Amino acid sequence: MAERITTRDKDFAQWFVDVIIQAKLADYSPVKGCMVIRPNGYSIWEKIRESLDGMFKETGHVNAYFPMFIPESFLKKEAEHVEGFAPECAVVTHGGGKKLEEPLIVRPTSETIINAMYSKWIQSYRDLPVLINQWANVVRWEMRTRLFLRTTEFLWQEGHTCHETEAEAREETLKMLGVYRKFAEEYMAIPVIYGIKTESEKFAGAVETYSIEMLMQDGKALQGGTSHLLGQNFAKPFNIKFQDRNGKEQYVWQTSWGVSTRLIGALIMVHSDDKGLVIPPRLAPIQCVIVPIFKKNADPGKIKDAAYKLKADLFQRSISVKIDDSEHQSPGFKFHTYEIEGVPVRVEIGPRDLESGTVTIARRDMDSKESVPMDKASDYIVSLMDTIQKDLFQKAKKYLEQNTKTVDSYDRFKKIVDDGGMFELFWCGGSDCEEKIKNDTKATVRCISTEYREEKGSCICCGKPANRRTHFAKAH
Amino acid sequence: MAERITTRDKDFAQWFVDVIIQAKLADYSPVKGCMVIRPNGYSIWEKIRESLDGMFKETGHVNAYFPMFIPESFLKKEAEHVEGFAPECAVVTHGGGKKLEEPLIVRPTSETIINAMYSKWIQSYRDLPVLINQWANVVRWEMRTRLFLRTTEFLWQEGHTCHETEAEAREETLKMLGVYRKFAEEYMAIPVIYGIKTESEKFAGAVETYSIEMLMQDGKALQGGTSHLLGQNFAKPFNIKFQDRNGKEQYVWQTSWGVSTRLIGALIMVHSDDKGLVIPPRLAPIQCVIVPIFKKNADPGKIKDAAYKLKADLFQRSISVKIDDSEHQSPGFKFHTYEIEGVPVRVEIGPRDLESGTVTIARRDMDSKESVPMDKASDYIVSLMDTIQKDLFQKAKKYLEQNTKTVDSYDRFKKIVDDGGMFELFWCGGSDCEEKIKNDTKATVRCISTEYREEKGSCICCGKPANRRTHFAKAH
Repeated sequence: MAERITTRDKDFAQWFVDVIIQAKLADYSPVKGCMVIRPNGYSIWEKIRESLDGMFKETGHVNAYFPMFIPESFLKKEAEHVEGFAPECAVVTHGGGKKLEEPLIVRPTSETIINAMYSKWIQSYRDLPVLINQWANVVRWEMRTRLFLRTTEFLWQEGHTCHETEAEAREETLKMLGVYRKFAEEYMAIPVIYGIKTESEKFAGAVETYSIEMLMQDGKALQGGTSHLLGQNFAKPFNIKFQDRNGKEQYVWQTSWGVSTRLIGALIMVHSDDKGLVIPPRLAPIQCVIVPIFKKNADPGKIKDAAYKLKADLFQRSISVKIDDSEHQSPGFKFHTYEIEGVPVRVEIGPRDLESGTVTIARRDMDSKESVPMDKASDYIVSLMDTIQKDLFQKAKKYLEQNTKTVDSYDRFKKIVDDGGMFELFWCGGSDCEEKIKNDTKATVRCISTEYREEKGSCICCGKPANRRTHFAKAH
Repeated sequence: MAERITTRDKDFAQWFVDVIIQAKLADYSPVKGCMVIRPNGYSIWEKIRESLDGMFKETGHVNAYFPMFIPESFLKKEAEHVEGFAPECAVVTHGGGKKLEEPLIVRPTSETIINAMYSKWIQSYRDLPVLINQWANVVRWEMRTRLFLRTTEFLWQEGHTCHETEAEAREETLKMLGVYRKFAEEYMAIPVIYGIKTESEKFAGAVETYSIEMLMQDGKALQGGTSHLLGQNFAKPFNIKFQDRNGKEQYVWQTSWGVSTRLIGALIMVHSDDKGLVIPPRLAPIQCVIVPIFKKNADPGKIKDAAYKLKADLFQRSISVKIDDSEHQSPGFKFHTYEIEGVPVRVEIGPRDLESGTVTIARRDMDSKESVPMDKASDYIVSLMDTIQKDLFQKAKKYLEQNTKTVDSYDRFKKIVDDGGMFELFWCGGSDCEEKIKNDTKATVRCISTEYREEKGSCICCGKPANRRTHFAKAH
């Protein structure tokens, strides 16, 4: 039997690690700061990738692959970019038994190497827009690492696009922010705050950075994905020019955007409970597990037949289903395992069910069990997936709403900030106040919401007028 | 208009590069030995990955992800392994601005890092078999690189499995060789010779290496994929032990197997022609392109309607289809582009077609055009995909048969070896003869075919008795 999972109340950080290790999502590796994504975790990443990739392709994007090594000199071409990333770089100095003439950086992000290619490929407005995405591993040397949230190497996707005009680039930046928001809400069942980052929090090299922000069950925020308007900041040093519709040479306008395996961390911290993982059905590698219950004096053949018939029905209806009819483990042990692993729906079929022509259906996200007529079971399960998906979203939305707090006194804010939550504060927009708030409370501006609601107030820090509230929170 | 493609006759190596560059499959990068896989090439890799991944999952495998950095000491744990790979390693010596205590190797293959985890995960026979695959990038420092065939960084999949017995591990090794063979024949439309490698050609650290071998149009062979029986060579240094069914501690028995983006090189060199790329329909990202032909005095609306109706029909039938109704390029230019890019079927719909209620259908792999009634077009195209897939395989098979040569005189072999082809030679099995033949002719044992046909003869090199023929060829 697995060890116990620490409760969220007792130690949220330990609970997070316990869920990951016991659900076999990931494991620590012998390489400092790097984790292993085990099959249970990787299959969630496959679902995320598949869903997002479909959304990228629907919006006209194509995938490509660029070298993971970046000549050191490339990284230095954009001043803010190198300043932001140089301290986090892993450097290859030797290859094939020899010292390299120029060290190679293992990509922390691929703007520079990709732009070197774009300058070769783009000549005319007819070559635009370029809408390329890459699924890849990247490396950022981190001091303190946490499974899924912050690891030295991680998996992600990075979109890199080029456009004729600034307006088109901005439209793309916001479109992809919208894709991330839709994905978070409809697939991950996680509501988000979305908007623009402040100067101090934006991507090194961007003109503007937008993000989606999520609230975890410990009251801390998590940045779920970012979309950057790069303007011509990279186009100029990399000399990406095109002949426009009037025959004039111009620099392209660019965007980049990414989400990573960190999203699995968000899934865990938003939905899971003290029993283990909870995953929304649309991202669950196994959506339904059927456990036949064999008892003495009952015909195991008939129970198996019923189980396999239901499996076939569900498979036909595109439900990902597994039967666990192994004999060396008790039903209780199996229930426990699938609870830890977060399978959304469990079906039990035992002799009594067989007699009454029913099956017993248990939801992972609730404590209830229901008895459903055998011939209605597959219909019931199909619609149950939608119900669970919606319920998880509503629960997370309610949590976000209940933990979004409007505060107007700085003293009170300092008093309650450690209770966690998303704080809507009047802020003057000044970086001095932003920094003071960060130093006093460790809370940062998560983003300035794109949904503008005018309100009159005065900055919680300096008292100057402010005409809107901004989202502050302590973040992972 | 694109530059001309060098003909195969004139310069096969240059033709290969021309096809890749002009079909926009890949490009040279500014990083020595690394290439960029452009969207047209990457979408073929996506088809390969999707198809193979399905076959791996059908045979019970799951995916996971392991760190790409390997501590130098790990690589050294298996003596032959480090000897084989050390000269090809890229070494990270600095991270986060500091010199690392122990250098990290960028994985050339992942046996060592994966086995370090397996020793932690495996305790009992109940944990076996472990059937894990990884899709990843790897790095092998190469002196002379060639697009797709041999690049410093490349994409691949690597399966790593553990079993209770040697027999099960051997079964797995051969099963995966079979999967590769099936994939090559049924998806890539490439016939293969398959069998065991000689001692000198086997994987560094394996007990036995099996491979599939393909014959390119220049008469050179290409190793398409390998499957290794590792025995307990890694289990011992990495201490991967399990308690067997009798309660005794034992080392696991292992396999590993992989194919890479090199397969795209094989696709090009087997099927393509002097006009550009030819891809078998099952791996073609776009299987059919519809080109409406607009002429003066004809209603463009009606032509477009017919084109979009056919597109919808084909989409319903799971054909991947594109309409090119852009107006700034001539039909001739479009035909040329899709010919270079290897779209298997082109449909033309012009005013005359509309009048006669037909469409014109052209096969990429042949010079012919056919007129087909509009209402039969989608049926025709669906079955044409199968026909093309089979025809390409038959053509490649015929080429392999016609270029497989039986030679019994060493002098004659030396004379004709440069004409290319697969040579079936009597060979005593001795490494001295193998080496002499390699030195004299540059031909190597491709593999000792698993399909054993006993024949009596004498070694072409030393004259000693040999009871079977072995496949030799010069290889890429």
